[in-house]
Amino acid sequence: VKGGGYVKYGTEAKVVPGKLNVHLVPHSHDDVGWLKTVDQYYVGSNNRIQNACVRNVLDSVVDSLLRDPNRKFVFAEMAFFTRWWEEQSPERQEQVRRLVKSGQLEFVNGGWAMNDEATCHYIDMIDQTTKGHRFIKQQFNTTPRAAWQIDPFGHSSVQAYLLGAELGLDSVHFARIDYQDREKRKAEKSLEVIWRGSKTLDSSSQIFTNIFFVHYGPPTGFHYEVTDDYVPLQDNPRFDGYNIKEAVNDFVNASLVYANVSRGNHVMWTMGDDFQYQFAESWFRQMDRLIHYVNKDGRVNALYSTPSLYVDAKNVANVTWPLKTHDFFPYADRAYAYWTGYFTSRPALKRYVRALSGYYMAARQLEFLVGKNSGGPNTYSLGDALGIAQHHDAVTGTAKQHVTNDYMKRLALGASEAEAVVNSALACLMNKAPKGGCTKPAIAFSQQCSLMNISYCPSTEETLPGQKSLILVAYNSLGWNRTEIIRIPVNDAGLSVEDSSGNTLDAQYIPMDNVTSNLRSFYTKAYLGISSLQRPKYWLVFKAKVPPLGWNTFFISKASAQGSNNHKHSSVMLSPMNNTTEIGPGNLKMVFSSDSGRLERMYNSRTGADIKVDQNYFWYASNVGDAKDPQVSGAYIFRPNGSLAYPVSSSKICTVTSAFIGNGNVQSKLQIVRGPLIDEVHQQFSPWVAQVVRLYKEKEHAEFEFTIGPISVGKGHLTGKEIITRMVTDMTTAKEFYTDSNGRDFLKRVRDNRTDWHLEVNEPIAGNYYPLNLGMYIKDEKAELSVLVDRATGGASIKDGEIELMLHRRTSMDDSRGVEESLVETVCVNDTCAGLTIRGNYYVSINKVGEGGRWRRETGQEIYSPLLMAFAHENKEKWKASNTVKGYAMDHLYTLPQNIALITLEELDLGNVLLRLAHLYEAGEDSDYSKIAKVELKKLFSGKMIKEVTEMSLSANQEKVKMKEKMKWKVEGEAEQPSSPLRGGPVDKSTLVVELGPMEIRTFVVQFYQKQRRRKLFVG
Amino acid sequence: VKGGGYVKYGTEAKVVPGKLNVHLVPHSHDDVGWLKTVDQYYVGSNNRIQNACVRNVLDSVVDSLLRDPNRKFVFAEMAFFTRWWEEQSPERQEQVRRLVKSGQLEFVNGGWAMNDEATCHYIDMIDQTTKGHRFIKQQFNTTPRAAWQIDPFGHSSVQAYLLGAELGLDSVHFARIDYQDREKRKAEKSLEVIWRGSKTLDSSSQIFTNIFFVHYGPPTGFHYEVTDDYVPLQDNPRFDGYNIKEAVNDFVNASLVYANVSRGNHVMWTMGDDFQYQFAESWFRQMDRLIHYVNKDGRVNALYSTPSLYVDAKNVANVTWPLKTHDFFPYADRAYAYWTGYFTSRPALKRYVRALSGYYMAARQLEFLVGKNSGGPNTYSLGDALGIAQHHDAVTGTAKQHVTNDYMKRLALGASEAEAVVNSALACLMNKAPKGGCTKPAIAFSQQCSLMNISYCPSTEETLPGQKSLILVAYNSLGWNRTEIIRIPVNDAGLSVEDSSGNTLDAQYIPMDNVTSNLRSFYTKAYLGISSLQRPKYWLVFKAKVPPLGWNTFFISKASAQGSNNHKHSSVMLSPMNNTTEIGPGNLKMVFSSDSGRLERMYNSRTGADIKVDQNYFWYASNVGDAKDPQVSGAYIFRPNGSLAYPVSSSKICTVTSAFIGNGNVQSKLQIVRGPLIDEVHQQFSPWVAQVVRLYKEKEHAEFEFTIGPISVGKGHLTGKEIITRMVTDMTTAKEFYTDSNGRDFLKRVRDNRTDWHLEVNEPIAGNYYPLNLGMYIKDEKAELSVLVDRATGGASIKDGEIELMLHRRTSMDDSRGVEESLVETVCVNDTCAGLTIRGNYYVSINKVGEGGRWRRETGQEIYSPLLMAFAHENKEKWKASNTVKGYAMDHLYTLPQNIALITLEELDLGNVLLRLAHLYEAGEDSDYSKIAKVELKKLFSGKMIKEVTEMSLSANQEKVKMKEKMKWKVEGEAEQPSSPLRGGPVDKSTLVVELGPMEIRTFVVQFYQKQRRRKLFVG
Repeated sequence: VKGGGYVKYGTEAKVVPGKLNVHLVPHSHDDVGWLKTVDQYYVGSNNRIQNACVRNVLDSVVDSLLRDPNRKFVFAEMAFFTRWWEEQSPERQEQVRRLVKSGQLEFVNGGWAMNDEATCHYIDMIDQTTKGHRFIKQQFNTTPRAAWQIDPFGHSSVQAYLLGAELGLDSVHFARIDYQDREKRKAEKSLEVIWRGSKTLDSSSQIFTNIFFVHYGPPTGFHYEVTDDYVPLQDNPRFDGYNIKEAVNDFVNASLVYANVSRGNHVMWTMGDDFQYQFAESWFRQMDRLIHYVNKDGRVNALYSTPSLYVDAKNVANVTWPLKTHDFFPYADRAYAYWTGYFTSRPALKRYVRALSGYYMAARQLEFLVGKNSGGPNTYSLGDALGIAQHHDAVTGTAKQHVTNDYMKRLALGASEAEAVVNSALACLMNKAPKGGCTKPAIAFSQQCSLMNISYCPSTEETLPGQKSLILVAYNSLGWNRTEIIRIPVNDAGLSVEDSSGNTLDAQYIPMDNVTSNLRSFYTKAYLGISSLQRPKYWLVFKAKVPPLGWNTFFISKASAQGSNNHKHSSVMLSPMNNTTEIGPGNLKMVFSSDSGRLERMYNSRTGADIKVDQNYFWYASNVGDAKDPQVSGAYIFRPNGSLAYPVSSSKICTVTSAFIGNGNVQSKLQIVRGPLIDEVHQQFSPWVAQVVRLYKEKEHAEFEFTIGPISVGKGHLTGKEIITRMVTDMTTAKEFYTDSNGRDFLKRVRDNRTDWHLEVNEPIAGNYYPLNLGMYIKDEKAELSVLVDRATGGASIKDGEIELMLHRRTSMDDSRGVEESLVETVCVNDTCAGLTIRGNYYVSINKVGEGGRWRRETGQEIYSPLLMAFAHENKEKWKASNTVKGYAMDHLYTLPQNIALITLEELDLGNVLLRLAHLYEAGEDSDYSKIAKVELKKLFSGKMIKEVTEMSLSANQEKVKMKEKMKWKVEGEAEQPSSPLRGGPVDKSTLVVELGPMEIRTFVVQFYQKQRRRKLFVG
Repeated sequence: VKGGGYVKYGTEAKVVPGKLNVHLVPHSHDDVGWLKTVDQYYVGSNNRIQNACVRNVLDSVVDSLLRDPNRKFVFAEMAFFTRWWEEQSPERQEQVRRLVKSGQLEFVNGGWAMNDEATCHYIDMIDQTTKGHRFIKQQFNTTPRAAWQIDPFGHSSVQAYLLGAELGLDSVHFARIDYQDREKRKAEKSLEVIWRGSKTLDSSSQIFTNIFFVHYGPPTGFHYEVTDDYVPLQDNPRFDGYNIKEAVNDFVNASLVYANVSRGNHVMWTMGDDFQYQFAESWFRQMDRLIHYVNKDGRVNALYSTPSLYVDAKNVANVTWPLKTHDFFPYADRAYAYWTGYFTSRPALKRYVRALSGYYMAARQLEFLVGKNSGGPNTYSLGDALGIAQHHDAVTGTAKQHVTNDYMKRLALGASEAEAVVNSALACLMNKAPKGGCTKPAIAFSQQCSLMNISYCPSTEETLPGQKSLILVAYNSLGWNRTEIIRIPVNDAGLSVEDSSGNTLDAQYIPMDNVTSNLRSFYTKAYLGISSLQRPKYWLVFKAKVPPLGWNTFFISKASAQGSNNHKHSSVMLSPMNNTTEIGPGNLKMVFSSDSGRLERMYNSRTGADIKVDQNYFWYASNVGDAKDPQVSGAYIFRPNGSLAYPVSSSKICTVTSAFIGNGNVQSKLQIVRGPLIDEVHQQFSPWVAQVVRLYKEKEHAEFEFTIGPISVGKGHLTGKEIITRMVTDMTTAKEFYTDSNGRDFLKRVRDNRTDWHLEVNEPIAGNYYPLNLGMYIKDEKAELSVLVDRATGGASIKDGEIELMLHRRTSMDDSRGVEESLVETVCVNDTCAGLTIRGNYYVSINKVGEGGRWRRETGQEIYSPLLMAFAHENKEKWKASNTVKGYAMDHLYTLPQNIALITLEELDLGNVLLRLAHLYEAGEDSDYSKIAKVELKKLFSGKMIKEVTEMSLSANQEKVKMKEKMKWKVEGEAEQPSSPLRGGPVDKSTLVVELGPMEIRTFVVQFYQKQRRRKLFVG
């Protein structure tokens, strides 16, 4: 054969000081569902939509890495990796373990998915990251060192400081920042910064941040996918097209372009793109040659690298880095294209994720309390579904409809298995004489009522058989005592309610409103295929007290002949008589104008807080592209076609045919319901926007329940509508308002303003929207007006004194960011389909300046963890004989401090228990609570003997003491010692008391002595 | 992790008797150039045209084979494999060697390329196969067992019996047969046959032939390329889309469809397609699962297989196979689509390949005679270029233009290196006192004259400097004594010619004709960038005798004053006087009609053969799609748009302004040239069709030199023209005519008729065209009319007594078989481009019935191996002093028998010499010559001491004695013992005499004792 043509390519290059080092980081960005479902992406089916198969990526990448020990690859999404890992032979798994050990294959991020940063709750972010990190630890005994958030549409403080620094990661890498910001940073070489995301934890949780030059692909011309039409490096003189000289020159020129916008002599080239590396060798073959010939040329040094190697090199470089605080919201990739629509897109999915997040926490607590039952149902599938749902195209609402349906299906399947866990755990816990341990509890709870919010709950509606009562067990997953109003749909206004101690409770009956009944019949048909004509007539409302991490039982029974009626109260129904109507059984009062039918004033008789507030519903018309720019409003991008939002109620005053069944057609804009426990105001803003405002006797906030849809669209369906609720007050807020970051720290926002550069305003409305997960508030010298949301929502304060939330949106066009679908959600019964209706709550409170924090934090916990209700039909005495009616997991008299939340209590494998405690307040947020708090673990686990408590990293993949020391960085304008915030000290082995400073979250793995696990746990 | 998902797929299945066995044969059909050049296909550049990279195929196939020892893959094209093999590391080469040894990787065909079967010469087919097979033997010590001709457009007897059976292959596999034939064979289960391609060698060279069900891809739905939108087998219950049941059913159903058209219980699925397996695992992953689950189901048995395993299984099956003789031409994939255009497409390329084939044989002889010089130029690159050119899209003319240019470039580069070998070898052989061996021969021959046919040869045109003569050395690569007419362009009609013994030879001067001069000036400008206004005035013609495998020297000098002039003869130029003109210096006479300007009659005064023949040029109009069918005429397909061919000369008689320079504008249709050595008739049929008919004194055939082009196309360029020459005679041929198979056996053709089925005639013209490489003949009781061609050409006999050859074609549309280009060849000078002009020869002879064979075989050898001419300018005496003017490689008085040809004499590596001898006659072809002939090797290599002679297989990759015993097959209607044709016996070690029976070709590796290699070789 004509002379050996084998070239041993020199790919062993390391970092060379004094030269420009071009770090080639091979990666494949694999969306955990987007245009195809996660399974279709994994097995490579449905390729007509998108030619993508992750099995191909991992199979071929491992083959390529095995060919040359110098080659590297980084992989992020464990939802995919675990699917692949399970299919590999033991030998192949061994090979991959060696690749990880040698650093050839590096996990970056390492969560179940690459979570979004605007529409995710911090607990879900921690759970999904933990799920992935523990898999990596178990299988590879390694811990990721870099956060790889290359596609999320804007970046949050919590992602940086909590899911980055606190988690032990040295760096975070991403691509998408505002186009104006990017230009300025390129000019100032400030694309790489030290980011201190938390005001409270400041420099103690800073992280090196690498913002890519343009996107997460390679520089133009260096894209080597097997299906691409690229020009391969041709170095064999005996073939045509020898082009090494040109290729090396192109490489050097391109690297200089990167170099002159960065500090130090290291630049990163992200060598990959969406689902690339279907045949990895097609990329590695070219990169081998690039490194070989570029290094032979010598002008620059090219090397295979990873984010951790890159950051190590940056860390030793003698460079001072710019400081970054706050966050990177909102994101705009060019003028007129603000990605603030997805803060709200697909609100039903957003709500389902948030509801199941709280439910998942409660289910894992109960699973722990009774001990995981290996064979039976467990919470794994719900955890997997929730982990997938955090992906930046899932909960964001930016996936195709068929993919969204797949997310919903997975969540529903996970939820039903978790429900089985909850039912059997509660039954087992309450069972006084668990013969065979907990496997076959005596009683079986019936189905829990996830459609309670549209008055569908078979257990409470059905007429009680014979001598049986409706047994209602309420479980409280918070660490605090709780008093809540329970509301269940019933058909009999004569029922009496008894608590676990036998006292009869006040029960208020509220007639069922038409809006709810209509929703119920349409949606039970669409979702469950049931067309039950029989609809419950009333809501039965009563006050329930439930102990922390415990449950209480309530007995609802048919009224016995002699039973007194004085506890049963039917609500008073009336229309507004004079020009205003005031409601409020407790301290908080709300005044409605009979004329406009709208809220006018809120005041708190106890605190004296008193503001004028006009609340109404409006809609922005989605832009379909205009003279200035073809950009339309779509799943990602919100772009109103003008600066005005139109009130939903058309000009003529919209009278409400009676909101209540059987109440004749009383014509008025307001229907008022008064009662001992709740006052309600029912409003109908338009045929497709209704609202119920509730004031509870014991609560100091107003609950606004909105029902929006089907969104009516003009003829030709071309114009989309984006629905907001807006509260206009007389507060002088000086353009300022405060929104939360993933449900944790609040950030000050200033309208038409950015912290890092002078904003050129092109979108006065869309550019001022911010993501909410806990809520937002405005304040002036007199008062704070706070709003808490029940799901990820977009919020803004477009004028001083105003708060608006975008609650639902329907856009008739695709905004050309790849999903290639308009945002039109429908629900069909047989073949008649209607636009999706959204029902949910937001909560409003007015407080003295500085006192809003406490309400926001405590009510936020209550919204996140509603009482969990299980139902059974049983004879009261028979039930009491065999079941403990009230119980506590913790020590009988112990509750967690008011500023501490138990955010994770979960039995891991091998009997270890994962415990996470979170301080709820920022420094300076609350005079009393922004301090160190203590938690006594012995009392938290009163029924068990703690063998050992080991403090872990946030993602529980390594012991705290073994965590790498945090990297030190020289930061511009910072001479003195970095600040050291208030943090809890180490846990004393004997007292087992955990201290937490403001905004601290501490994670522990607790081991118990096995034997007394079951018995001594509960006391009646 | 949720339970191991690893499935060990059961892929170890072997053949299971009693069940339907589905043999999955993974392959990738890689064209050695088609839409992209061979290098572009190898490195994967120019992907815009076609996403194809063979490097990807081989890299990923080896990775996949290493994953599972049961997986198999077959690869055919060594032009690609060697490119890949050279680039592999020694370790990788070891891995691949093990894969070949274990049978996982099987070479099929194994030639340099998958040669075409219509337009290739048998010597090129043998050379290119040998090149690949020796590489495989050297690197893998294995020999291919199956011929894999899956894409060539029709199949030849020679491919089956010579390049199949005689080469030691058990089977041949291909897809393309006539659509009517396929339907019949499917009905009769005769898609698999025993094919006896040679009448002469009959059953001794039969081969099992597997004709695929439809094409060489998998059944629909089983195509698993990485870029395809296929439905992957989904067997993981935890992912969506579990579909194993359906997939197995589909597999079983599809295999039954294949089974019910085949005998025995084995069917082959060709699992691959053009350039597929860019990422092999995408295919193997699915095939693993198919085999695993199909075999679990058990209705049929699926297994990884190869053609040799498949044929082994067929061989042991108790089945009687149908017999097949003759061949599979012409090919039609559907009605109105006869692939007979490519027999002629790109005639310039076809001629270049044929000319260089003969040249390559001569060059290797000379290289052997002087001993290969390792450092310097060698014939490797010409061999590589010719090997590539045999690919079924190269010499066929069915590649894109830019790819055809690449083939031409490679041939030109190979030719120029071979020319350097020839020049230095000749100089070294003739050198009387080779001081330093042969490295620096005293004299350097000037450039050889490959453009002699358009009168461009600097050495012969330039005026001879001073006392120097034009030294002309003629080398004869045949094993016979030769007397040829040499024709060189000169500017001086006074030159005298002397032979090596000093005798003055008769020299006839023929004035240069305009057609040649115009061609010369345009093409020397286009090809060489020379615009030499000075053009040679005469052709100097003289008779040359050259010894077998030897050379002779001729001295052409300016006439010295006293030199006699009686040997110089200027030709007599005249126009036809009376109504006919007769020419012919020898026995053969030709009569032309002055009126029509065309040939009327040919007769041989010696043999008495005498026939009326009217020869004219016509053109078929290419069909552009019509009511019957949209099929157009294109690079592959010939489809005239009617049954008539139009004469090229428009209606009015086409007068020829004088064909000769400076001869005024003599108006007549004929120009006659008479002289002692040659009579010529010059005809101008149309502005773009000219012809010269030559009769040589010593030759008994007429040489027709045609010059066609640029083909004029109608306005709008839409209609193509396909130019033929047609000879109409009065012979009664009863629809019969005879055409050759790749230059070897002649097959009887019957118009509108097929041997194997009753033909439904849809294309009366295109369907009756056959491929020619040697020629064709017709005969009746009285005479045989034979035509020999100078390149691969399409020929037919559309009416009794007629012979037509298609010589040039230009189609303005693409015939939608993938090349996506119309066949429009142009030549440009700067930016003015003209249609390509074709110049070439065909040779016509009339013989008594039964005597045509000798002329056809001997003249065929002379056409294939023209005298090789080298030129120098030197003083005659000085030349004679230092050079041997005449020499012989063989024993001085020895010549090969008249029925034997030396077709290969080549020095391999390690001093081995490859020798191939071929018997030229079929059984019964010639009364004297169709017998056993003997060759005395000692006399063949008289100058050398033969150490050892080892008989080899045809492709010299194994010793004849070690060749596997030929498989036995039960053939329908064949009870008795198979015939045993006349074959030469084994070679006696001492006498070293080789016997050859009719049509036998025997191959030997000869080793010589080193030392006397140089000296005693030649005698003056």
